[in-house]
Amino acid sequence: MPADAVNRPTASEALGAFVACSSWDDLGDMVRRQAKRSLLNFVGCALGAADEGPVAAAVSVLAGVSGPPRASLIGRTERFDVLNAAFVNAIAGNLFDFDDTHLATVIHPTAPVAPVVLALAESRGATGEAMLTALALGMEVECRIGNAVSPAHYARGWHITATCGVFGAAAAAAKLLGLSAEQTAHALGIAASEAAGLVENLTTAAKNIGVGNAARNGLLAALMAEAGYEAAPGAIEGPLGWARASGDVPDIALMLGGLGRDWELLANAFKPYPSGVVLHAVIDACLELRADHAIDAAMIEAVTVSGDALLLARGDRAVRNERDARVSIQHSAAVAFLFGAAGLAEHSLAAADDPRVRAFRAIVSPRLDATLPKGAARVEVRLKDGRTFTATVVDARGSLGKPMSDAEIEAKVRALAAGGRSTSRVDAIIDRIWRVDALADAGALMALLSAAED
Amino acid sequence: MPADAVNRPTASEALGAFVACSSWDDLGDMVRRQAKRSLLNFVGCALGAADEGPVAAAVSVLAGVSGPPRASLIGRTERFDVLNAAFVNAIAGNLFDFDDTHLATVIHPTAPVAPVVLALAESRGATGEAMLTALALGMEVECRIGNAVSPAHYARGWHITATCGVFGAAAAAAKLLGLSAEQTAHALGIAASEAAGLVENLTTAAKNIGVGNAARNGLLAALMAEAGYEAAPGAIEGPLGWARASGDVPDIALMLGGLGRDWELLANAFKPYPSGVVLHAVIDACLELRADHAIDAAMIEAVTVSGDALLLARGDRAVRNERDARVSIQHSAAVAFLFGAAGLAEHSLAAADDPRVRAFRAIVSPRLDATLPKGAARVEVRLKDGRTFTATVVDARGSLGKPMSDAEIEAKVRALAAGGRSTSRVDAIIDRIWRVDALADAGALMALLSAAED
Repeated sequence: MPADAVNRPTASEALGAFVACSSWDDLGDMVRRQAKRSLLNFVGCALGAADEGPVAAAVSVLAGVSGPPRASLIGRTERFDVLNAAFVNAIAGNLFDFDDTHLATVIHPTAPVAPVVLALAESRGATGEAMLTALALGMEVECRIGNAVSPAHYARGWHITATCGVFGAAAAAAKLLGLSAEQTAHALGIAASEAAGLVENLTTAAKNIGVGNAARNGLLAALMAEAGYEAAPGAIEGPLGWARASGDVPDIALMLGGLGRDWELLANAFKPYPSGVVLHAVIDACLELRADHAIDAAMIEAVTVSGDALLLARGDRAVRNERDARVSIQHSAAVAFLFGAAGLAEHSLAAADDPRVRAFRAIVSPRLDATLPKGAARVEVRLKDGRTFTATVVDARGSLGKPMSDAEIEAKVRALAAGGRSTSRVDAIIDRIWRVDALADAGALMALLSAAED
Repeated sequence: MPADAVNRPTASEALGAFVACSSWDDLGDMVRRQAKRSLLNFVGCALGAADEGPVAAAVSVLAGVSGPPRASLIGRTERFDVLNAAFVNAIAGNLFDFDDTHLATVIHPTAPVAPVVLALAESRGATGEAMLTALALGMEVECRIGNAVSPAHYARGWHITATCGVFGAAAAAAKLLGLSAEQTAHALGIAASEAAGLVENLTTAAKNIGVGNAARNGLLAALMAEAGYEAAPGAIEGPLGWARASGDVPDIALMLGGLGRDWELLANAFKPYPSGVVLHAVIDACLELRADHAIDAAMIEAVTVSGDALLLARGDRAVRNERDARVSIQHSAAVAFLFGAAGLAEHSLAAADDPRVRAFRAIVSPRLDATLPKGAARVEVRLKDGRTFTATVVDARGSLGKPMSDAEIEAKVRALAAGGRSTSRVDAIIDRIWRVDALADAGALMALLSAAED
């Protein structure tokens, strides 16, 4: 241990001070804008999923145990206590796997954090600036802790959106509750004792429990710290703390270096398609071939999709349902060529079961090409007339190299809202989120997001 | 993989079938009696801690978010929804570290499970037999999963009472809710995505969050499974499931072998002293020397306490507060010789700070003796008059070799209740628990445990 390490703050102390001491002014224009984009994208996803079965089931269970209705459910008429509302809204935001992605960690950073600041703003009152500041700081903490344990953490089986999301939720809640640096450190240390969620469960609804708990438990951690609960200084990185218990030796420099100067939030990406990020280059390449060469699906004899090991590991699989479809190379290529689109409708159970899609999936062959960079794909299509065409996409739509524009995010939100309940309000919602920092009462946003009194 | 492994049930499937298919009749007299002893011991601990600061703080936080008051808090006037009541009662039962211990895993098995069956019995109705059956099965699942990952799991930093407690809570809730084997397996798989809690945090109130969440989250898992949520078949032991993500290769034979025939519940031990189990032989030896040789503390020049590496690792430490006192060899010897007792009063903050105790702690020296078996201690006392006496205790009071009698557990519960609010009712409580299996409505027990309408 270096001599100066003795008085060096622990991870939760350093992050606690960062969160407690950072203000709206410290964020800068880029981070502020990205926080709004993240919030808008999250809201669209939650609106779109509001009536889905797993959300409805969670609502039915929690309706019987929820406390005073102080926080709205996005796109629904019910109102719950803040903890249960955060749980449900986090599930909704993440349900379609259509939410944002911090690519370095594969954390979906907004879903566990935004529901917490929305519930607190609605129930306790907060300005738009305060709410957005808390959101940005929570996501920053979440992604930095994720950086420090990636990629081994996820590879070992931890669903990093849940395990790191709880820290983000705790930090954001602590900020909005006005906790001191010391209290915020305790909130983060408490959150360390709540981090859970498994990759093994990702293909089932158990995934939603992990994501919902991340939001709920992070908020609980902050509320308990506010009430005087404490945690060990080394809860995150200590010898018997979270990171090491989880099998990681955390990279503290990556976690704490450049705090307040370098923002992970700027590396947050938004998906144009509701499927695994690695598949987006596949979809783009197929759409490009289809458009450039006026290819009708009926003309196609075979499709070969080349990508690196990650693409093949994530995407080469049999499709039995819509969950499989969202992580299938074969399905991605099929719907892109068949329908010229790869949105929610093309990733539904109906699409997964569509005989035309089934037949097309059978003519798609994945192939390893280790020379292709991460996130890239090459698609070769062989037509029945003997012609072949090839397209290579390195920067997929929505990647950091080709980020979604504000207008594209808006269009995505409109499409999602059309599947939810709040279509009549979507223009107002979009407008309100772009100007959320001007709100004296950020809770007013939730009045728009709720489907109550529609 | 052996050929027959293909159709072998997964851990959650096997445990789910065991829980769903086992009845009161299957438990046998020994298990039934031990379940009652566990419940009684738990209730005493929760009564004793009902007014402690960490319990009061949790109540104050959750009072603002609790749903319909369907479940009582032990020793308190408030009633909460089932999830929040389970959370608080689990914290209270475990707070003093005076609850039971499954020695092979160091799980405190009742605290995360009993609050769940009590809350469900009170809110939904259940016979005493049904409640006790669910308690026994939940604890069995909890300890068996713990066995399969011990001792490495705890050594790596996982607070096993919390991480395995959530499985016990899920299993017990599933049983009392009448879930099918399949639904129970899903509840266990969901619980795997909720397992959290750190050894690093054990010296702080963050510990309580882990234990409270184990009860709350286990109950949630069962409620969600009842509502149709599913989990991956291999959520517990699969390649990206809980055990492996936590760093363990689970011993499935230890987890599933002899299910329904061999009961871990019979290896559950009850503490005579509110301190670390390894210290109990130290206390017994000191009390024996004091009594046998009429030793007054003022006569003593020095005390040497010998034990194995575990005793020294757990017990040799500076005492700054009551939490330290409960895990201190020096404090254990000091109070035993000074007061001839080692109960709650002797492990309070006042006792930890008592100048006489401080002075005595300074003359106690731990010494490694690797030849002593686990759980044993030898105490050598040197008097100022030159005489020395030695006592060796292999089976401490409360150990499996010298278990607490029913009468001793009753006396412990009376002492604990005297520190809580329900002293006037303690006789009725004890009587009711010994006959709990005769209750047509087990919820009636909670009416006694609540301090409402006192």
